[in-house]
Amino acid sequence: MKITDMIVTPIAFTDPPLLNAAGLHAPYALRIIIEIKTDADINGVGEIAGGSAVLASLHQAKTFLLGMDPFERNKIRLKIEEGFSAIKDTLNTGYAPKGVANRMYSAINVALLDIVGKAIERPVCDLLGGRVRERADFSAYLFYKYEGAGGPWDFGHNPEAHGWHKEKEAAALDPEGVVAQAKAMCKEFGFKSIKLKGGVFEPQVEVDTIKALHSAFGDKTPLRIDPNAIWSLETSIKYATQLEPYLEYYEDPCKGQEAMAKLGKSITIPRATNMCTTSFAELPSAIALGSEDIILADHHYWGGMEAVVQLGRICSVFGRKLSMHSNSHLGISLMAMAHLGCAVPELKYALDTHYPWQSDEVIKGGRIKFEDGSIYISNEPGLGVELDYQELERLHQNFLRCGITERNDEIEMQKVVPSWTFAAHNY
Amino acid sequence: MKITDMIVTPIAFTDPPLLNAAGLHAPYALRIIIEIKTDADINGVGEIAGGSAVLASLHQAKTFLLGMDPFERNKIRLKIEEGFSAIKDTLNTGYAPKGVANRMYSAINVALLDIVGKAIERPVCDLLGGRVRERADFSAYLFYKYEGAGGPWDFGHNPEAHGWHKEKEAAALDPEGVVAQAKAMCKEFGFKSIKLKGGVFEPQVEVDTIKALHSAFGDKTPLRIDPNAIWSLETSIKYATQLEPYLEYYEDPCKGQEAMAKLGKSITIPRATNMCTTSFAELPSAIALGSEDIILADHHYWGGMEAVVQLGRICSVFGRKLSMHSNSHLGISLMAMAHLGCAVPELKYALDTHYPWQSDEVIKGGRIKFEDGSIYISNEPGLGVELDYQELERLHQNFLRCGITERNDEIEMQKVVPSWTFAAHNY
Repeated sequence: MKITDMIVTPIAFTDPPLLNAAGLHAPYALRIIIEIKTDADINGVGEIAGGSAVLASLHQAKTFLLGMDPFERNKIRLKIEEGFSAIKDTLNTGYAPKGVANRMYSAINVALLDIVGKAIERPVCDLLGGRVRERADFSAYLFYKYEGAGGPWDFGHNPEAHGWHKEKEAAALDPEGVVAQAKAMCKEFGFKSIKLKGGVFEPQVEVDTIKALHSAFGDKTPLRIDPNAIWSLETSIKYATQLEPYLEYYEDPCKGQEAMAKLGKSITIPRATNMCTTSFAELPSAIALGSEDIILADHHYWGGMEAVVQLGRICSVFGRKLSMHSNSHLGISLMAMAHLGCAVPELKYALDTHYPWQSDEVIKGGRIKFEDGSIYISNEPGLGVELDYQELERLHQNFLRCGITERNDEIEMQKVVPSWTFAAHNY
Repeated sequence: MKITDMIVTPIAFTDPPLLNAAGLHAPYALRIIIEIKTDADINGVGEIAGGSAVLASLHQAKTFLLGMDPFERNKIRLKIEEGFSAIKDTLNTGYAPKGVANRMYSAINVALLDIVGKAIERPVCDLLGGRVRERADFSAYLFYKYEGAGGPWDFGHNPEAHGWHKEKEAAALDPEGVVAQAKAMCKEFGFKSIKLKGGVFEPQVEVDTIKALHSAFGDKTPLRIDPNAIWSLETSIKYATQLEPYLEYYEDPCKGQEAMAKLGKSITIPRATNMCTTSFAELPSAIALGSEDIILADHHYWGGMEAVVQLGRICSVFGRKLSMHSNSHLGISLMAMAHLGCAVPELKYALDTHYPWQSDEVIKGGRIKFEDGSIYISNEPGLGVELDYQELERLHQNFLRCGITERNDEIEMQKVVPSWTFAAHNY
């Protein structure tokens, strides 16, 4: 089986005005969809966050991918590491994984596994050692937000909407708003645990939001808060006292492995990260310092699905636990995450996902349904998705029209609050 | 695809009277061959060192393996870890990997990968991310030895033999004998690097043997010595000065992670181990102490072929290199090692193998041929071997007749030198 083509399509899909430490989500989020074709008439798909460096690098990688076998993933990874490790990423979200190589390979890796799964008529999880659980549980992912749902509707609000659709469009700028959002989201999708994206308001407001969520949902619903490293070490320690009774884990309250390591000496809440430890290269110092208790895996950052399996082993060896991070994404990534959730023994927490915030889709059949907060993996070969070329083209036209080529939440925030800067926003 | 049976067959094959720090190889080496059968009429094979604990545990594991799918390797591994981690190993070679779980699972893992490879018509290396090299290079493995070739011929010597066969039967008890052995072995098999099993004589004799090998083979043939941790730290440091110009790496001269870490502070030769760091559980202290530069992987110890892939990643992350350890083995293990040698990116050294010392075989076609010191992996599905049931039965009868149920090199040595004890033998 030989690779005969790779189609790389940048897309933009509607994204609500979600607030985070880096600023504000634009009305469109960028993503790149790849489709790798083979001479066996089997195609595979992958998805990765957009950006000009990854886009250009993926186009370049095509030249050496042609003629290679989708089973040759080690060789392809080494070639990409060799050719692209020096290229810096252009993501601007207040932090960024280092280099484009891991991110571009992650999309390729998913597409190759999709091909192999289809070729051998097995779901992708069976290429990762097989299921250890039948379903991947996901967590509700709450955001403070402005009114609107992104894209052409960004400045409007549909008065006819109800349930989750109403809350998705509504503003949520205080604890009550977030509780209403949580109730609607959990009712719609069946999530059993909740994550709050923090780092937006004064810490006490966010701590009060966690308390309000606990009042509304009770002890049986694990809660997480993620201030995206915008709090100082002192602030992180100070609010840990209030948060301790309620939190499942405390995600990146402060910045960097050293501060996170010091935090660990002062608090008892497990510390999680997808910011201070986001690549294999950062693991030796993370282990030496003890900068986290839980690593939030993300196959887009770590270099593909097999890399997350390896990260799982590393976590079990070095006494870390494993959960999963998310960025705005569509169904290809959701299914890749779900296959990992079923296959990786160490992935025992409910996984993060932005999926409920999106409305568009590039796969046939449209939006994937959660069952009781989970995605069940069937025995369908590969990832279990097929591209909807009409929708792909529509979202590609969105990309061409929307004028956004890099994610930049700071600029987006300045459109609303002109004086706002990322650096000035620090508690 | 469901597992319908697992046949567990203990065997004994002839083994020459090789000397090592733990004593003397018995005329027979023990091994267990497993064959896992499926309802798809596809069988897979695995091989592991013999011993009563692993043998009994493998028989026990059969009960829950039946009905499982060979793709469900994660689930099977977790069940074995859960059920067998507490069972101690009965190997007595002066050191032993901890617990039978990893060893028994390694045989099962190889058999499952063999089945999956056959089912999808791909070589096992393609289940590990695919080849990064076309062939696995092996190293000559030299031993001080008494005259004889093991088994019924152990006390004899065939005067008709020539070349390697003559040297295999000859005694090698001094530098000259070992050089003759090396020349014959390298000529016969084409090996390009050489390992000497040390820890047998006074260190100066063994250092002189390395010097004699260097004189005979020159700078282009990498040399390794393995005193099996029988030297003290002081002895290891002292002889490092003499060995430094000649060694590719210095394998387990002294015992334990702490001594090995101290050694690293006094010498410049890379330190390798398959004794102080032999399992995932031992990695955190190995990394914290810096007890080795090179880990000698062994899928039999580490829990299967996928575990070695993961170990490779860990080595690359933490700045270690990867080579491969061997025990007396037959062709199933040789092929598993060769598939790993081709697939694991970090496995860049020539692999150890005892294979030239064996004469028996359990696979169809008999003894596997090295080409210029290497094993090439073809596209044959699975491991590329099939059981020879007649030979398997003959070697099983050997096992039943020979009376050996546990490897014990100390007792074997005492048959020759009654006063010899492992503890007394320490430089």
